[in-house]
Amino acid sequence: MAIERVAIIGLGLLGGSIGLAVAKHIPTIATTGFDADPEARQTAASRGLVDLVCDSSAEAVRDADLVIMCVPVGAIGFAAETIKDALPKAAIVSDVGSSKQSVGVALRAALPGHCIIPAHPVAGTEQSGPEAGFPELFEHRWCILTPPDDADENAVQSLTEFWETLGSKVEIMDAEHHDLVLAVTSHIPHLIAYTIVGTASDLEDVTRSEVIKYSAGGFRDFTRIAASDPTMWRDVFLTNKGAVLEMLGRFTEDLTALQRAIRRGDGDALHELFTRTRAIRRSIIEQGQDDARPDFGRSDHVTDKSDDH
Amino acid sequence: MAIERVAIIGLGLLGGSIGLAVAKHIPTIATTGFDADPEARQTAASRGLVDLVCDSSAEAVRDADLVIMCVPVGAIGFAAETIKDALPKAAIVSDVGSSKQSVGVALRAALPGHCIIPAHPVAGTEQSGPEAGFPELFEHRWCILTPPDDADENAVQSLTEFWETLGSKVEIMDAEHHDLVLAVTSHIPHLIAYTIVGTASDLEDVTRSEVIKYSAGGFRDFTRIAASDPTMWRDVFLTNKGAVLEMLGRFTEDLTALQRAIRRGDGDALHELFTRTRAIRRSIIEQGQDDARPDFGRSDHVTDKSDDH
Repeated sequence: MAIERVAIIGLGLLGGSIGLAVAKHIPTIATTGFDADPEARQTAASRGLVDLVCDSSAEAVRDADLVIMCVPVGAIGFAAETIKDALPKAAIVSDVGSSKQSVGVALRAALPGHCIIPAHPVAGTEQSGPEAGFPELFEHRWCILTPPDDADENAVQSLTEFWETLGSKVEIMDAEHHDLVLAVTSHIPHLIAYTIVGTASDLEDVTRSEVIKYSAGGFRDFTRIAASDPTMWRDVFLTNKGAVLEMLGRFTEDLTALQRAIRRGDGDALHELFTRTRAIRRSIIEQGQDDARPDFGRSDHVTDKSDDH
Repeated sequence: MAIERVAIIGLGLLGGSIGLAVAKHIPTIATTGFDADPEARQTAASRGLVDLVCDSSAEAVRDADLVIMCVPVGAIGFAAETIKDALPKAAIVSDVGSSKQSVGVALRAALPGHCIIPAHPVAGTEQSGPEAGFPELFEHRWCILTPPDDADENAVQSLTEFWETLGSKVEIMDAEHHDLVLAVTSHIPHLIAYTIVGTASDLEDVTRSEVIKYSAGGFRDFTRIAASDPTMWRDVFLTNKGAVLEMLGRFTEDLTALQRAIRRGDGDALHELFTRTRAIRRSIIEQGQDDARPDFGRSDHVTDKSDDH
């Protein structure tokens, strides 16, 4: 089963990057696309994110053999409703959302009898919108598929090959386990980053200007993911509530233990943890999941946009 | 009062970078250096971190008009003891530590009657040791001086000019306020990063291999600062206990509020915070304190070191 026509619903960072990556890696595939925002459709057309920008989602999916929903996970059920009547019987329906149990439920409810294979490319940047996409986004990144138990094997195979052709490594996983794993590797990190950036901007005794000036001490690393798309992330937390609260509980337990170690002056406990955490970064770099250059390579690229010392 | 001979005690990332930056920007200054680790002294000599690597700290400071202590803040009192008898009466003694009240107390106790001006260049990478330094580390970064009220104004002026020549912007601040500001912009971010990396590596239901594979979802951003030098950071938390516990209390309050919003499904509260936090990153980039490229510019530099999919 070869994929020849891909429809992309939602032309933001993810949808746009898929369109551009298809054009780069599999130019024989015809792409159509739709975005609910007319301005985004215009930008998508002028950037050439897909071959044809359509005026409705129904029109975009009419001839597709693969439909990829690239909308915030909270909107996925509504978006699916809009394509229901036009969707070809044989098309595979997939998505790119960061929580997978809720997406599976929503898509199955809206599109009964269709072949639904939820997917999550673990890739992104803090940018969003139709200007943000680029064709290399998925290269060397993992894409997790969470097909239901009764999924058509050929369809799973086709979708796997599709993502591999875009440069991803593909893993098949149970949706429930996906949601637990991503709670740790993505959702809790975002939640913590949003929190500390919020805390820092609300202080009375430290000014916002001081927070910005001295952010190179570590804080700035958190501001990147705390600049991610608010609607997308609101939906992730609302749709993966169980796993997020479970992992948050473990994090705050560990933080409380560290707080106690500081209060008691237990230097050995601190040193032991701080030594242990170095190993994980080493593995992440060895496995090509982060930049090996110190400071994310930022120091290679020193710029000063402000001259008012 | 012109600085002509600088002694650097401790030749790790910070000490080494100061030596290299002096050689780059003010080659007329003669630099001497010492490190308690004989291997580090050898590396320092072969990399040319200072003009002359000495066999004792006393020898290194003998002719200096500026001595910069670049050791973990917990060791600064001991290191000061070792230079006490050799230190020229007129020399300025400074440091690079991340907590300033405790450093001031330790240096004044060990070196009574000397001119002590604690300093903190807000710059660094996750690397440490004599291999890690580079001359551009301080460029466009802030350096905070915390002179005591009775400090010699000429000495403060000389030290200010010294750091400005290395590329830094200098700010004078009260040591107590410094410790509060840095608790937010540096110490709490490190503590949180160490914690979440520890939490993620101790789970039973998510494997360490999964954490590493899917780290591009956000987690990897935290692993950078959680790979920082363990001894340096143990000492920071032990010496800035008060401000760290105070700021940690505010952070956990805010995190608890967010946890409640998730539990109750309060999407508006989440969306409001997630929108607000974007502004801070924009300011940090505008003020040249971080890289404007998406994903810290990592996406410009995609590499894959692992071929075992």
